[in-house]
Amino acid sequence: MALNQVENQVQNKRVVVIVGGVGGVKLALGLQMILPPEQLTVIVNTGDDFWHYGLRVCPDIDTVLYTLGGRVDPVNGWGLTDDTHIVLGALREYGEEGWFGLGDKDIATHMLRTHLLREGHTLTQVIAYLAKQQGVRPTVLPMTNDPVATIVDTEEYGELGFQTYFVRYRWQPTVRGLRYEGAEQATLSPEVSQAIEQADMILFGPSNPWMSIAPIMAVPGMRDALLARDVPRVAVTPIVGGQALKGPAAKLMAELGYDVSAAHVAEYYGPLITGFVYDKSDPHISLPGLSTIAFDTIMRVDADKERLAREIVHWVEGYNE
Amino acid sequence: MALNQVENQVQNKRVVVIVGGVGGVKLALGLQMILPPEQLTVIVNTGDDFWHYGLRVCPDIDTVLYTLGGRVDPVNGWGLTDDTHIVLGALREYGEEGWFGLGDKDIATHMLRTHLLREGHTLTQVIAYLAKQQGVRPTVLPMTNDPVATIVDTEEYGELGFQTYFVRYRWQPTVRGLRYEGAEQATLSPEVSQAIEQADMILFGPSNPWMSIAPIMAVPGMRDALLARDVPRVAVTPIVGGQALKGPAAKLMAELGYDVSAAHVAEYYGPLITGFVYDKSDPHISLPGLSTIAFDTIMRVDADKERLAREIVHWVEGYNE
Repeated sequence: MALNQVENQVQNKRVVVIVGGVGGVKLALGLQMILPPEQLTVIVNTGDDFWHYGLRVCPDIDTVLYTLGGRVDPVNGWGLTDDTHIVLGALREYGEEGWFGLGDKDIATHMLRTHLLREGHTLTQVIAYLAKQQGVRPTVLPMTNDPVATIVDTEEYGELGFQTYFVRYRWQPTVRGLRYEGAEQATLSPEVSQAIEQADMILFGPSNPWMSIAPIMAVPGMRDALLARDVPRVAVTPIVGGQALKGPAAKLMAELGYDVSAAHVAEYYGPLITGFVYDKSDPHISLPGLSTIAFDTIMRVDADKERLAREIVHWVEGYNE
Repeated sequence: MALNQVENQVQNKRVVVIVGGVGGVKLALGLQMILPPEQLTVIVNTGDDFWHYGLRVCPDIDTVLYTLGGRVDPVNGWGLTDDTHIVLGALREYGEEGWFGLGDKDIATHMLRTHLLREGHTLTQVIAYLAKQQGVRPTVLPMTNDPVATIVDTEEYGELGFQTYFVRYRWQPTVRGLRYEGAEQATLSPEVSQAIEQADMILFGPSNPWMSIAPIMAVPGMRDALLARDVPRVAVTPIVGGQALKGPAAKLMAELGYDVSAAHVAEYYGPLITGFVYDKSDPHISLPGLSTIAFDTIMRVDADKERLAREIVHWVEGYNE
């Protein structure tokens, strides 16, 4: 098939990409660069969400919104560019530790979100409004409207809220296990159900499978909804050369007793995926029933994100023939 | 009695001053300048408190804390000096009206207060902590730990929350009446009860009697606790020359059908007070059973506040002989 035929096909395809924060959003941004906004839905982990000084903070969702809206801090990959920290400084003057990096403009996001939630809107409605006000055009959906909290059981401190583990202790404690508090009571939102039902292609971003993807899969009905779809379901490795591209993924794999490799990530996804993208610097991965391909998966600049997104979508279109 | 004898007496007296925000706090600041902190308790209106973008905002309490802590904005008389408005600007960029003047450092106060309230501390405990962290040494007590909301019934808009009336509409709507929502269910805190029981002198600051003092008196048990104390109970006029020193007090008196005069304020206080301080520019006030005195009640600079506080305390000590 000629490339322009593939392009034409892709133009009508609906893509769902499932992500956590900084790692996974790179693929979402690449997809935004190659797809019309009405064809792209980003389903985002909310297991990291927490109440902080009375405000509902959704770190992964904000990273997605700020990134797709072109306002993300380019150095950190989270938070807003050129933000100030006057509120945080004042909290510290009150004797607070101030371990969570709240920017001032970022606080406005948390305040508006909290206000709208307290008014009775669902998180999905609130995020849709925040996206609209930020000029974000693809659909961004929280994994559920219900509160789910990723709890990290550590050797040093016992159980910690995710942000305490991740930000306060800079993911240095040794992880013994993870659980997703509230997941049993959570329900799939109609918006997530519909997006999955209508997807022509389901992608898993290069996010941490245990800390970003697993909380999403813990929402009752999510896994079945995905498995029910006879469309390509493709994950992108967060592990390259036995190292995490970002954050604790490799350290965590080792602590949980896995060999740290892209192949073991593919195994961990198991029947959830029909395809797997690993890095071209890694050995070939061959698993029964799994389509695999090697690309340059390291996304340093926006051009890398666009290229990888295009390569993945075209490859998926091809193996879907 | 010689002045130094009076000074010695005053040094052992416990003073309770009951105030709203900007107007009344001037007297509280004057009292702070002449009394050891352990002798001064400020009981503050919380009828203006409201939830704003998920945060619990207590305008009068913050005005008292910021003023006594020496951090208040000297131009407005509320908010923090040299504060910035980055969060508010970001809220406006989201399309919010941003009618309430939230400074950035001020927001830190609201966030810490909300956090501590959500942790289960009483408002009294939270304010004591905020006072301590700001170096405020007199005791500052909210009128109650329970939520009470002053609701203003206006001709133009019907019922409005106090801040909507006061800040958003700049107290321009015509007031038909006032009610104090939740007051029936509110209870006197042990700290307020004890302060009143131990007071040697109870003062009412030059606050708006209907909008700042009346909500405090609406807390069940407050009025009886005050009336039960056989000590001087003295109010300071907020009306001078038929005008309010600040804010809507005069406009409101007229709208509620009162003649706008200091004498009518004294009448409105009724049996709650045993003494009344009016301005020396106003005609003599004589009411049965009420001690009255004229001072220069206009407090422009800190020296005025100290002078008036000293004059009032010494006068009260004298008529208490």
